[in-house]
Amino acid sequence: MTAYNAPIRDMQFLLHDVLEVSASDLPGRTDLEPSFTEAILEAAGQLASEVLAPLNAVGDQQGCVLENGVVRTPEGFKAAFEAVKEGGWTGLDCDPEYGGQGMAYVMGVATGEIFVAANMAFNMYQGLTHGAYSAIHAHGTDEQKRTYLPKMVSCDWTGTMNLTEPHCGTDLGMLRTRAEPQEDGSYLITGQKIFISAGDHDMSENVIHLVLAKAPGGGEGTKGISLFIVPKFLVNEDGSLGERQPVSVGKIEEKMGIHGNSTCVMNYDGAKGWLLGDLHKGMRAMFTMMNEARLGVGLQGYAVAEAAYQNAVIYARDRLQGRAVTGAQNPSGPADPLIVHPDIRRALMDQKSLLEGARALTFWGADLIDRGHAGDAQAEGLVSLLTPVIKGFLTDKGFEGTVQAQQVYGGHGYIEEWGMSQFVRDARIAMIYEGANGIQALDLVGRKLALDGGKHVMGFFEMVKGFIRENEGNAALKADFLEPLKAASKDLQSAAMFFMERGMKNPNDALAGSYDFMHLFGHTVLGLMWGRMAVAAQKALDEGRGDAEFYRTKLATGRYYMKRQLPMTATHLARIQSGSDTVMALAAEQF
Amino acid sequence: MTAYNAPIRDMQFLLHDVLEVSASDLPGRTDLEPSFTEAILEAAGQLASEVLAPLNAVGDQQGCVLENGVVRTPEGFKAAFEAVKEGGWTGLDCDPEYGGQGMAYVMGVATGEIFVAANMAFNMYQGLTHGAYSAIHAHGTDEQKRTYLPKMVSCDWTGTMNLTEPHCGTDLGMLRTRAEPQEDGSYLITGQKIFISAGDHDMSENVIHLVLAKAPGGGEGTKGISLFIVPKFLVNEDGSLGERQPVSVGKIEEKMGIHGNSTCVMNYDGAKGWLLGDLHKGMRAMFTMMNEARLGVGLQGYAVAEAAYQNAVIYARDRLQGRAVTGAQNPSGPADPLIVHPDIRRALMDQKSLLEGARALTFWGADLIDRGHAGDAQAEGLVSLLTPVIKGFLTDKGFEGTVQAQQVYGGHGYIEEWGMSQFVRDARIAMIYEGANGIQALDLVGRKLALDGGKHVMGFFEMVKGFIRENEGNAALKADFLEPLKAASKDLQSAAMFFMERGMKNPNDALAGSYDFMHLFGHTVLGLMWGRMAVAAQKALDEGRGDAEFYRTKLATGRYYMKRQLPMTATHLARIQSGSDTVMALAAEQF
Repeated sequence: MTAYNAPIRDMQFLLHDVLEVSASDLPGRTDLEPSFTEAILEAAGQLASEVLAPLNAVGDQQGCVLENGVVRTPEGFKAAFEAVKEGGWTGLDCDPEYGGQGMAYVMGVATGEIFVAANMAFNMYQGLTHGAYSAIHAHGTDEQKRTYLPKMVSCDWTGTMNLTEPHCGTDLGMLRTRAEPQEDGSYLITGQKIFISAGDHDMSENVIHLVLAKAPGGGEGTKGISLFIVPKFLVNEDGSLGERQPVSVGKIEEKMGIHGNSTCVMNYDGAKGWLLGDLHKGMRAMFTMMNEARLGVGLQGYAVAEAAYQNAVIYARDRLQGRAVTGAQNPSGPADPLIVHPDIRRALMDQKSLLEGARALTFWGADLIDRGHAGDAQAEGLVSLLTPVIKGFLTDKGFEGTVQAQQVYGGHGYIEEWGMSQFVRDARIAMIYEGANGIQALDLVGRKLALDGGKHVMGFFEMVKGFIRENEGNAALKADFLEPLKAASKDLQSAAMFFMERGMKNPNDALAGSYDFMHLFGHTVLGLMWGRMAVAAQKALDEGRGDAEFYRTKLATGRYYMKRQLPMTATHLARIQSGSDTVMALAAEQF
Repeated sequence: MTAYNAPIRDMQFLLHDVLEVSASDLPGRTDLEPSFTEAILEAAGQLASEVLAPLNAVGDQQGCVLENGVVRTPEGFKAAFEAVKEGGWTGLDCDPEYGGQGMAYVMGVATGEIFVAANMAFNMYQGLTHGAYSAIHAHGTDEQKRTYLPKMVSCDWTGTMNLTEPHCGTDLGMLRTRAEPQEDGSYLITGQKIFISAGDHDMSENVIHLVLAKAPGGGEGTKGISLFIVPKFLVNEDGSLGERQPVSVGKIEEKMGIHGNSTCVMNYDGAKGWLLGDLHKGMRAMFTMMNEARLGVGLQGYAVAEAAYQNAVIYARDRLQGRAVTGAQNPSGPADPLIVHPDIRRALMDQKSLLEGARALTFWGADLIDRGHAGDAQAEGLVSLLTPVIKGFLTDKGFEGTVQAQQVYGGHGYIEEWGMSQFVRDARIAMIYEGANGIQALDLVGRKLALDGGKHVMGFFEMVKGFIRENEGNAALKADFLEPLKAASKDLQSAAMFFMERGMKNPNDALAGSYDFMHLFGHTVLGLMWGRMAVAAQKALDEGRGDAEFYRTKLATGRYYMKRQLPMTATHLARIQSGSDTVMALAAEQF
């Protein structure tokens, strides 16, 4: 029922007008000229619109079914997965040594947005595999890489991440899955893992599980945790598949959304595993992939909201209901389209201005990750700071956006066949997994702010200041963009200062404001993104280059964000500065 | 899986410490002494916890099924409905002349909250009947009242409201259902209605449909609309059931939530109907019930959030994860309970402070409706102003609350068997039906603000000022309650002033800010509620009366609201004062 069209024009604007990816000196970047990236995005868009989007509702309705120990994916998923593989999409930004195309990560993110927006649940099979690929690529031995990566790059084998257990999610120090060392250097893995996305299914020959477990001698808590590669089928020396391991699906969870993805309880009953990375340093190995994984979830948040938004716009243009207060706009019809009404505009502009800012932030984050991979420590520090914001803020706002889009449909939004409910239900998970958003806020305030002596957050403030200084002479942008950004940045600095002054004496004062800080940061960095986009759009207009209508729309959308969304920073600051007294006032039994 | 306990202590506080219901001079109010209302609330609470709450998940999982033209409700619903009927709950606040108990509406609302929180979908069968009862009671002839009301008070017959058609919801002027006058004074009703809650089911002998339709000669738009009583089975003179009418269920909608309620497409194929109220004045007849119906939906918003909150608290106390940043609080256990963490506190306090404020506002609204019924025009004007706020603000915030409660559960919140997803999915509809919240905002700003020359909103401002003046000497409350309330009220007045100055010249300037105004009003009136509750709690403490712990908790919760929620008014004002330029900047095709 729902439609999806890849926002290619907007992506091209970000890649070339804002990030200027092909002008960068990073390896492989000079290939990324506008015509080349456009061709890639269009091909991805076509696959998304024609193959993946039509399966979105099918996946929701049919879900995954466990039959005789085997997970069956919804009708059409297998054929679509083959189409994605054949198109080479699974290895777009993977290492050419293992069959990847070696493209910049920012291109993987751009095409990723397109696939996620079209069918989030479906894309997870590939997304999880990419995560497992990255872990093995970063920490595996040469033999492990040769054994697993080529098949994972092609998605002939898919991957999973096994962290959570029934009694522990965030607090992995309590995990109980054991790894017993064997004489041949392998381990026998025993334990139960839950919430394993793409844990098993019928679209690949093998599933490569990455499993956190405790091997003897590692001590208490997270220190004793190691990461293991546990394939569903053992792999013979010649690469062919051997014995089926004692790894089984306990059940498929019935979830609120993403029904097309098999979320499994996985039972490991003495399955063979091989250490990935160093013994007892599994947490560190996991953390090196964290920025990418969390950026990927932030992307899910706004990508699903983009799809919801597109449909809300279509509905608002088509549905005739009421008359514009300023006089009929469709006088020959029985009523005006919804889109004439100011409050419908507000809802659509909220979504549009947030989405475009979110895309800019995410692409910028991916660009920073590319720079970090190329050895730019400053970029790596910055993206590490921004990651919890990207994950937490964008998934909260993305979910809100789907709810707003659903609201545009009125009663029809609540009826499943219209498809808007699915967007809401699917988007909801992104606020929870890969570290619930409260954990993102804790990571931001408790860890990232103070990292390397606060260098990265200082760097961010300097960057904002520098941006404002550079563009001060731009009269067209001063009042609409630079001044609101300055005010937001000031609020963010005041909040950081409050934490510094108070957090030492009473850490609760910082933590009680952590969630608001994440949102305050989110708005400020989206303000910066809008500032940058405005500069780029104004420049193109001044130079009389390209599609003036597009650039004017961009500026108008940005003005909305600065006027209507950015004022939230003041409220977040007020909440933060109220400290922890009212937050911690009650005893547990008084709730 | 989820638990529910009626918040009787809190309700008693509102009824007696804050609203002082038994001290009122309204008819029937002197009976409402604390021991009496407590007994009623406890009986309702017991029924809710033991009978209705256990059926909440059942209703969600099984839904309603259409079999051979008959709607089957979920297992156990029929027996539970009998229990509710036998308890006399369906007629608690109905007219004794027709078998009701004649209690104050505020008591109907208090028990209603309990039933809705336990099982929203189930309670709708009774709730819709109450709405239809009120319409017939207000507008019916003596004969109509005698024919229908006794059976509706007892819920032997249930009722429905038929407004929406496939092409029109808000814009009822476009409706197509026809009413052809017959010689015997009846009409033949033909047309299709959608989204008819409790449209048909197997728990009552008859269903009395109230249907909006166009009779000849009424002219265009809403002016030509009349309201008709269309029983599923005709009623013989002796009250027995006669012929089955040509009224049928086209289908049951598959919805995001409230699966236990049968939401039907209803087809009327020349069914006999009788005019209810005046010909061509059906809209007016509907509007007289609007305040109650909308207050009832506002109640749904926060009642479901209350149930979700209670479960989040239980989970936060039980689930061990991580350690308090200020030192282990459960040193003998493997980890501390979630509730030690400041960000979990923030989420719980957000919910608690909002819920208790919402309950106070809703009970106050019900009290005003009681006063209005007794002829107090000022009360009626005030509740008419507050109704869109109660409906729009409380359902938005209630939904947000369910999302926050779900978030406390982490990954388990996303798994259906834990029950938190259902709260979110159920609560979502309250933002949509009975006038989508954007329509509430429009009603507030476009209609209610200016009603009777702005008298009611002025009255509200005077009331706030009066409250602050009266309590100025109360040093314990000044900084924590009175000053924040003053600031919020000032923001609200500034917004109203902005609309007055700008709205005449450009109505879009008012409408673009309508949604923010509804929330700004909501926060301000909740600020007033918290002020009143604080005064009452402080008074009880000063007098050394009752449970000091309860009153101290109340004050602490109120302080949280004033510090952490009320600052939102500044952001809403900033958004409003930005006018409509950025909201209306784009042409429809630029979205």
